[in-house]
This record gives sequence, structure tokens and C-alpha cells, in this order.
Amino acid sequence: MKIVSEAKAHGGRQGVYTTSSQACGCDMTFAVFTPPQAKEQLCPVVWYLSGLTCTHANVMDKGEYRRLAAELGLIIVCPDVSPRGDHVPDEPDNWQFGKGAGFYLDATEAPWASHYRMETHILEELPALIAAHFAADMGRQSVMGHSMGGHGALTFALKNPERFKSCSAFAPIVQPSTADWSRPALAKYLGDDESLWRRHDATLLIADGARFDAFLVDQGTADGFLETGLRPWLLGQACTDAGIALTLRMQEGYDHSYNFVSTFMDDHLAWHAERLV
Amino acid sequence: MKIVSEAKAHGGRQGVYTTSSQACGCDMTFAVFTPPQAKEQLCPVVWYLSGLTCTHANVMDKGEYRRLAAELGLIIVCPDVSPRGDHVPDEPDNWQFGKGAGFYLDATEAPWASHYRMETHILEELPALIAAHFAADMGRQSVMGHSMGGHGALTFALKNPERFKSCSAFAPIVQPSTADWSRPALAKYLGDDESLWRRHDATLLIADGARFDAFLVDQGTADGFLETGLRPWLLGQACTDAGIALTLRMQEGYDHSYNFVSTFMDDHLAWHAERLV
Repeated sequence: MKIVSEAKAHGGRQGVYTTSSQACGCDMTFAVFTPPQAKEQLCPVVWYLSGLTCTHANVMDKGEYRRLAAELGLIIVCPDVSPRGDHVPDEPDNWQFGKGAGFYLDATEAPWASHYRMETHILEELPALIAAHFAADMGRQSVMGHSMGGHGALTFALKNPERFKSCSAFAPIVQPSTADWSRPALAKYLGDDESLWRRHDATLLIADGARFDAFLVDQGTADGFLETGLRPWLLGQACTDAGIALTLRMQEGYDHSYNFVSTFMDDHLAWHAERLV
Repeated sequence: MKIVSEAKAHGGRQGVYTTSSQACGCDMTFAVFTPPQAKEQLCPVVWYLSGLTCTHANVMDKGEYRRLAAELGLIIVCPDVSPRGDHVPDEPDNWQFGKGAGFYLDATEAPWASHYRMETHILEELPALIAAHFAADMGRQSVMGHSMGGHGALTFALKNPERFKSCSAFAPIVQPSTADWSRPALAKYLGDDESLWRRHDATLLIADGARFDAFLVDQGTADGFLETGLRPWLLGQACTDAGIALTLRMQEGYDHSYNFVSTFMDDHLAWHAERLV
């Protein structure tokens, strides 16, 4: 792990780091906020997974998580959303696939399978680094995300309910296997057999029996992706059918941007802190 | 005034606007956060002046002012720091002069005087626009800024104590007429007669008799510009000599970045809100 930058912020430390990722076959960058409490005790870890076109930096710059994370004593880890580098295959003109669009899965199809392995990167590689280099209590982890990262948070939680104490999402893609902007990516990363897509789709994971105690989801009503890309009512129906406690809040007038995410960040951090005690 | 973008944020509205500036001879961009209280009443206005290399966007993205401004009912106006456009003269390789480095003055020397008139832009043009287009109580204004913008805030307040109810600064350039990174800019904008520089220098304005009730200044001890560019002790001495109440807080371990600014933003907003009632 190499330090790219570290700066004191809200009494804690906002850092940016890189690691040589075996899973992704490239250097991967990630941001970690360490709260002041970490000087004296192990702190719980909240993962924030970002959306399409983002890097680790968008939420670090615009997410407004540091003030309350410092107060609550939460370590916040913000990974990148895809492999990077000139040697990594890509569709440079397609913002919904390739670099900036890893969809939090391990690709199985050539040429993508050799680098697009974000599930292993975030669920195996990064936790080992966080445990080794930060005052992290890895027995207390939660996950949240925005848009494509909301999809990542929901699917990671449903597949790893023993690891994550809580899960929340801002405007998540709840059914990527049927949404226009994600279906083509799943086909390219995973092949044409749609039965293999189901473990990367929150609603279909629930239909197939995966369970998680409770989700908090915020969704802006002025979000341009609401009707075709996000469709939180599909998650609502899946949770109702499965008996999962979903707190779905339709937030009047909010769009898909970090103006929306930052507005409700405090609520999400409090949701996680309550469940990480 | 044209709307570039508007988005709901923290119950209020974060907007970006442009105006055709007579003073600067170009289109000028600025950001305005309007708190939810503005739907029902006129709200006080806090001006935030940014530092070298910035635009309106840096503090809008990283300043973390919206949550508390929405709670306190403050309109936050964030101007650009210089004229812009291909026709505006510049020294493209010099980050301490020209575009991105207007130094909050009206230039008198050719070729800069035809565009570099940020003092008129911010003290005359923008207030007229804010009064006309927002629910702003122009009888209640305050000013704050960061680095070069801290210089702007201090000098604007000292020259307009009847207009600004309060003034604060993050890591301000307190004596630009003697600091390495600002002296050459003053010479180019204002000419060689240093007596004309004094009204753009907070410490020399005070020495020449300008007064303001009180200043709040935060300064990081790990700020790389502290010793040569910023030197808050010079403001300390000037305020002591003049009987101005300066609250100067040296903040241990903080650098010059928005990690520092955002950490103490709440304190500054509270400082202004108390004085804007």
C-alpha cells in the first residue's frame, strides 16, 4: 500500500492510497477516512461504493461524510469503481461499461475477466489491507453506495449478511439485469446465460432466497434515471415478498447528484452507527 | 443572469449562474446557495471568496457549507476569482497572476485594467444581481474567504465596514504587498507606486486607519504557505496596535486544502450568523 496523500480533516485523517491489485491486474486507488477515535481504539468500517463514471474521489470531495464520521468514530473506505490503466481493456466511448463501470462483479468473459474483478478486489483484497494498515475492527463492517454503487452495496450485503451489520443505498440500481443501462454490461462481463447474472442483481438475489435484516434507501423524485434505470419499487416488492425491512424514502425534488447524496449522508451514517455498536 | 444549473440540496437550492460582466468585460460565473427559509422570508448573505487557482466550484464542491447554511438560513454567494475567456490577457504558466489570480482589486495598468476588475464585480455588480434575483436581505451581509480570498474578505470588510456585519478568513494572505507570491501581481495590476497597493493590503489598511469590529481567522499549522505567504502574526500585530478584536486560531496539523476549510466551515458560518441577526 502506497500513500498518495494524507491530510488532517475534522480531527481525523483523509487519505488516498494505492495498491498493486492481483485481482484487477493493475494499481488500484482508494480513499480512507480515519476518525480521531482510531488513535485510541479499533473503529468500525463503513464501505462507500460509488456510481458510474466515478472514482474514489467523487464522494471524498462531495460526499460530506467526514464531520459526522469523525463524531461517530467510523472509518470510511471509498474504493474505485473499476480497474484502470492503459493496458486494461475498455470501451472508451461507453460510460456504462468498462473503465468507470465495473458493476461490482468478477467478469468471466474475455477480455474483461483478466481485469474486471471488483468483487474480489473489494471483498477480499481491500479488507486485508484495511485490517493490516488501519485501526479497523473488521468484525464491525457496513456497506453503502450510490447508484451503481447502491447495487454493489445491496448485492454485497445480500451475499455476505454475516459480514455486514447494515446496508444502505442512495438511488441504487436495484435490478441491473433488466435495466437498459446495465443489461449490456452484464452480458459482456458475464456472458449470455442470464442465470449467472442473478447473483449480481439485488431483487433476483432476494427472489432466490438471499436475505438481509434491513435496508435504508433514499431516492430523489427529480432523479432523471428513476423510471428506467433505478426503479426502487422493484426492491420494494422484493422486500415485501421476502419479509425484509426496507425503509424506502422518496425525497421530493432531489436529483441523482451529490447534492442529493450529501444531503442524506448524515442519516445513512447514523443508520450504520446504530447497527455497528 | 443565466442559470447554468440548479439542484436541491439540504432542503435549499445550490445554483450556478453566469452574468455578462461590464466590469470584467466577459461572462462571469458564480454559485449561490439559497436556504429553505428563503421561500418565506429575506435571508442574510454571506460572501465566500476563493483562493488562487480556484473558480466558484471548489468551495461549492468541497466546502461543506450547505448543511449548516440551510439550518441557519444563510444565502452563500461564491464568485469566481478572476475574469475568464480567450480574449482576457493572461500569463498562462503563472498560477499567481492573471486568470485564477485576480486578487480582489481593480487593475489600473494595461493590459490588465480592461478586465481585471474583481473589486467592482464583487462589490457592485454581483450585489445588484443578488438583490434582484434572490430573497436576499442586502442590509445583512458578511464576508469570508480562503487564502487569496481571505485577503479579499479582510480588505473588503476594512474598506466597507458599514456593509459587512462580520468577516472571517481561512488561512488569509494578510500582507500581500510584501509576500513573495503576491507582490509581483500587485506590481503588474497596480503599477510600481507601492502607495497605491496599500488599500489592497489588510495590515496596511489597518495601519492607515481602516477599522472593523472583529475578525475570526483560522490557520493550519501544517500549511506549507504559512511562513512566507500567509504570516497571520502580521495581522495579529496590526489588530493589537489598532485595538481590533482578532480571534486567531492556530489549528494543529491542518494544511492549506479544503480538508482544513471544511473542518472549520461550521464555526465560521456560526460566527457570521450570530452577527447577522
